Amino acid sequence: MQAKHNKTWKHKHLIDVDDLSIQDCSLVFQLANKYEKALKNKKSISPILKNSNIFNLFFEPSTRTRASFELAGKLLGANVINITSEISSVQKGESLEDTIKTVSAMHSDIIILRHQDSGAATFASMNTNTSIINAGDGSHAHPTQALTDAYTIRKRFKSLKNINVTMVGDIEHSRVARSDIWMLTKLGANLTICGPASLIPKSFHKAQNSKLPHVQVQTNLKKALTDADVIIALRMQTERQKKKSIPSLSEYAKRYQITKTNLQVAKKNCLLMHPGPKNEGVEISREVANSSLSKIEEQVANGVAIRMSLLQLIYTNSGK
Amino acid sequence: MQAKHNKTWKHKHLIDVDDLSIQDCSLVFQLANKYEKALKNKKSISPILKNSNIFNLFFEPSTRTRASFELAGKLLGANVINITSEISSVQKGESLEDTIKTVSAMHSDIIILRHQDSGAATFASMNTNTSIINAGDGSHAHPTQALTDAYTIRKRFKSLKNINVTMVGDIEHSRVARSDIWMLTKLGANLTICGPASLIPKSFHKAQNSKLPHVQVQTNLKKALTDADVIIALRMQTERQKKKSIPSLSEYAKRYQITKTNLQVAKKNCLLMHPGPKNEGVEISREVANSSLSKIEEQVANGVAIRMSLLQLIYTNSGK
Amino acid sequence: MQAKHNKTWKHKHLIDVDDLSIQDCSLVFQLANKYEKALKNKKSISPILKNSNIFNLFFEPSTRTRASFELAGKLLGANVINITSEISSVQKGESLEDTIKTVSAMHSDIIILRHQDSGAATFASMNTNTSIINAGDGSHAHPTQALTDAYTIRKRFKSLKNINVTMVGDIEHSRVARSDIWMLTKLGANLTICGPASLIPKSFHKAQNSKLPHVQVQTNLKKALTDADVIIALRMQTERQKKKSIPSLSEYAKRYQITKTNLQVAKKNCLLMHPGPKNEGVEISREVANSSLSKIEEQVANGVAIRMSLLQLIYTNSGK
Repeated sequence: MQAKHNKTWKHKHLIDVDDLSIQDCSLVFQLANKYEKALKNKKSISPILKNSNIFNLFFEPSTRTRASFELAGKLLGANVINITSEISSVQKGESLEDTIKTVSAMHSDIIILRHQDSGAATFASMNTNTSIINAGDGSHAHPTQALTDAYTIRKRFKSLKNINVTMVGDIEHSRVARSDIWMLTKLGANLTICGPASLIPKSFHKAQNSKLPHVQVQTNLKKALTDADVIIALRMQTERQKKKSIPSLSEYAKRYQITKTNLQVAKKNCLLMHPGPKNEGVEISREVANSSLSKIEEQVANGVAIRMSLLQLIYTNSGK
Repeated sequence: MQAKHNKTWKHKHLIDVDDLSIQDCSLVFQLANKYEKALKNKKSISPILKNSNIFNLFFEPSTRTRASFELAGKLLGANVINITSEISSVQKGESLEDTIKTVSAMHSDIIILRHQDSGAATFASMNTNTSIINAGDGSHAHPTQALTDAYTIRKRFKSLKNINVTMVGDIEHSRVARSDIWMLTKLGANLTICGPASLIPKSFHKAQNSKLPHVQVQTNLKKALTDADVIIALRMQTERQKKKSIPSLSEYAKRYQITKTNLQVAKKNCLLMHPGPKNEGVEISREVANSSLSKIEEQVANGVAIRMSLLQLIYTNSGK
Repeated sequence: MQAKHNKTWKHKHLIDVDDLSIQDCSLVFQLANKYEKALKNKKSISPILKNSNIFNLFFEPSTRTRASFELAGKLLGANVINITSEISSVQKGESLEDTIKTVSAMHSDIIILRHQDSGAATFASMNTNTSIINAGDGSHAHPTQALTDAYTIRKRFKSLKNINVTMVGDIEHSRVARSDIWMLTKLGANLTICGPASLIPKSFHKAQNSKLPHVQVQTNLKKALTDADVIIALRMQTERQKKKSIPSLSEYAKRYQITKTNLQVAKKNCLLMHPGPKNEGVEISREVANSSLSKIEEQVANGVAIRMSLLQLIYTNSGK
């Protein structure tokens, strides 16, 4: 493949998707595609990360992201070490900077960082020579989820150009939303964000803000879903809402739950996605979540391939 | 070995031992025997599960079962990922069904499930194409412990036929008891269960209940121990007793503790077993627990071999 | 290397450094040096511990020690199983003795034990045939940290003979202090311990105590730092101080914090060390901790090599 030689990966860290060019994304997707097939066909995978040391440094509870990275690393032959805040020096009052420096000193090649504070991954990357991959920081970014989501849509439609994507829910507190918005608009999707006005960042209400990617804002669910090719339901992040942003979950559900009925205005065979963990009966009905439209489990499966791809690109291009 | 070709393993999941035929058990024991020897002699073990992904999904604390499965998987070359409820999405309110589907989607081959609710493993197996091994669900079942116990007895007596096994303690709340009862009676042992009437399930008091395996019920410890070849002491499961079933631990100990004195009526050189963790001074005296009769540590050692055997049988026969 | 054949490692366990001869230490350092280079140069490492089973049994939270041992084991090809008290049978009231026996029975070759009680590692070693490595027990000992510290000093000065080492801080509650004192004096360093009198064990105030290694006691920081080649700042172990031993952290910091100013009396280019996790602004100023004098991260890096060395020496000499 000639293309492979012309394109190269230059990123030491992955803090958010807005660092990535369209070519970078293509590189990630190509390699992920290779790994997705290998995983499906139970082919043996070359241990390209043998002798590498990957630290999963998680300051927040996580099943899917931590396990997905751990599996991705192990499948590529890396030594993967989990450190969670519950069992770490953080209990002894160590600063994030010190924890990062300590883990870096431990001959680490890549640190996968999940942290409750927005900006933690950026801060970490400024304090170490080890590659940092942001696995979610506060309500800021979750780049591997965004790459996974774009990959999942791309698999169906070949390209994201002019695909109508509607994202519904707690945009304000969702790091997935923020990363997805950058990723999907960069790759050419027509993005509509929908939810109660209190859950949509104020900045998006002003269409003229040129720094933000262009998205449609829509508080009416039916209008937002009309002609949608892809619907992304977001988790109601009640644990991150400092003030109450909605009157109650049931009132939210009444107006914004994705149900079979209100999907009728969307395109036939639209994709239904959710970054998980989902609250069935709140942002999505049980019926829809378990219907053939749902790509939720495929997202999880693709997430492993995307992370394998990223680990390889970052490890093999960081001068080691 | 001709026998090997005639017998085959057909189980995708292992929910409880009552699913297993006598031939199935023989298969498990034969393979476990091979691994037990390899472990003892520090022989290198063929990585038959290389490229397989095993998830230890534990919703309850556990040392021995989780570590035993993790080691068994690693010894066979599998990628083993631990997920505990403390650090999982369950904290975000995810349902068991969703967790199972998510972990399944992560290219998992086998999920080892420990859960506080009886029936969780059955429920999980109905919601996934991944093999489920029950590592203990509520007070329902603990099949790998039962296979380990049967294997440990069989090693000494060659067969369980007509071996007098007496199980003493909290039968009502013990998943080990339930699985052991099925396993040991199926393999031909004469089983006596003993404890205060309040800790013996009512169903066993009625001899005529044809659905239950045939066991003797005996509330008098001395009578129960008379001529026993094997004594299994059970942990007092105070954490699972919703109502107080015994007046106090010391009164229980006075009547039902296995001691050197009351072992005098048992067969000479009887085996003393306990699934652990044990409360010395409650269900068993310190002296007896640490005597040469005790097979408690051998049970732990055998548990690893039994789990290796099961992982291999399930993995290599699930159509992969 | 002829030397290699003349020296041999005879220790089944590593409980504290006072068990080690000078020759033993040389063996550990030589092998650590080999591994340090391999790690730095990203050379592939021979999986000498393949087929070995190492259990990290941690009853206290730990980032660096647990992760360092886990990585060391994995780099040598061992199966490493983590057990932490949060997720173990200890929650069900199991005794340390039973936990040790259970983990030993699980075909373990080495148990790495961290425990909150002084003496736990010694107790464990008396109850098992598995090798025990003490990863910190109460305020008693932390031998791998002491070996790491000695190794780090030795790298700079070739030998510890007549090197002036000053240790500052909470000597009383620090297991690192106790192990460092033995290690550094045995290898010939001139050791001064410094801190408020309430944080220096009474035994050290009496110079005539012949059982203790010879150290200078100094409560005046400036005098203690004068002509120091190496300064080891210790963490204020507020979590282990049963009674308040100092009026306040800020008053302690005023008198005993290592700062750029009071380092002026030390040797130029002295080494500044800290076993971590450190409290910047208490026992050490941020400026100094992040200066070129600081060997804090090098200690972490060396810790992995020291632990690889020990794992190999103990595993290959325990008759397996």
